[in-house]
Amino acid sequence: MIMDIATVNGLPYEDFVNVFGNVVEKCPMITAAVWSRRPFANLTALQAEISEFIDALSESGKEGVLRCHPDLAGRDLHSGTLTQESREEQAGAGMDALSSADASRMAQLNEQYKERFGFPFVICARMNDKENILRQLSERCLNERAVERARGIEEVKKISRLRLQSLVLSDAPNKL
Amino acid sequence: MIMDIATVNGLPYEDFVNVFGNVVEKCPMITAAVWSRRPFANLTALQAEISEFIDALSESGKEGVLRCHPDLAGRDLHSGTLTQESREEQAGAGMDALSSADASRMAQLNEQYKERFGFPFVICARMNDKENILRQLSERCLNERAVERARGIEEVKKISRLRLQSLVLSDAPNKL
Repeated sequence: MIMDIATVNGLPYEDFVNVFGNVVEKCPMITAAVWSRRPFANLTALQAEISEFIDALSESGKEGVLRCHPDLAGRDLHSGTLTQESREEQAGAGMDALSSADASRMAQLNEQYKERFGFPFVICARMNDKENILRQLSERCLNERAVERARGIEEVKKISRLRLQSLVLSDAPNKL
Repeated sequence: MIMDIATVNGLPYEDFVNVFGNVVEKCPMITAAVWSRRPFANLTALQAEISEFIDALSESGKEGVLRCHPDLAGRDLHSGTLTQESREEQAGAGMDALSSADASRMAQLNEQYKERFGFPFVICARMNDKENILRQLSERCLNERAVERARGIEEVKKISRLRLQSLVLSDAPNKL
């Protein structure tokens, strides 16, 4: 059920966290914090508050956000323990239907990435297909840690913007 | 299974978050962030890192942490949706066995508190009994918002220290 911004602004914090708590994967604290900034002028303003909160975290805080994300095509997908949002996003990018060669390549690169950086590879699956994801994963394994932390956080913000967009009416509906 | 600090320091971030993710209620991001600070000299150092991370959050971030906490003797207790840690702590303080008069007094004060402050009443249940909790709840309803935010955060840190203490061996075992 998609809400208009007036409805969003009227929610007590408990309902707000119930609805938007997973806009940043497994970080309901971020949504709960942003409730303090209501009222939001529109969807864009709400998206911006989430992004600004994340940007203002310390470097270890940003790494903490990344570490709350599951691997792509990883253990949680196979054991059915992904959040609903992640499951849909990963399925949309074909992560639940990899060939066995792609699956083992993905698993190997995920491990290599986590070993190198101490956080998982995060990418906005809804903006990428399987080929793209595999290519970027292998390329990004070569980056510096600080570059990857910043890059991962940009992807977290893209994911959160799309999740919000599926829950809140956008600002400027086309008028005929 | 209680761990020694060397074992804690050897955990990959995924295991660390699995074990310690709820040391701050529903805020695995905080635990995940603190993994960046390993190795920890001892339990006290790990407890201090969690507290320092919380203290360094913005005011809205601290309110976000508070809003991730359930009411005492509230909806989650009655519907069985408390985290395991909260359930045990609330039961230990008798929150699951209130008289009907105490239960309605508690519900009324919780609502009043949330209405006034925009976050729930948080208290370390393992350090208080039922009488104490009811008295403090009614007194703290009268505080200023900034005072209560700071007070709630001190309680969050006490809760996290006790949760950590049940998971990690303490620093100085008695020697005979």
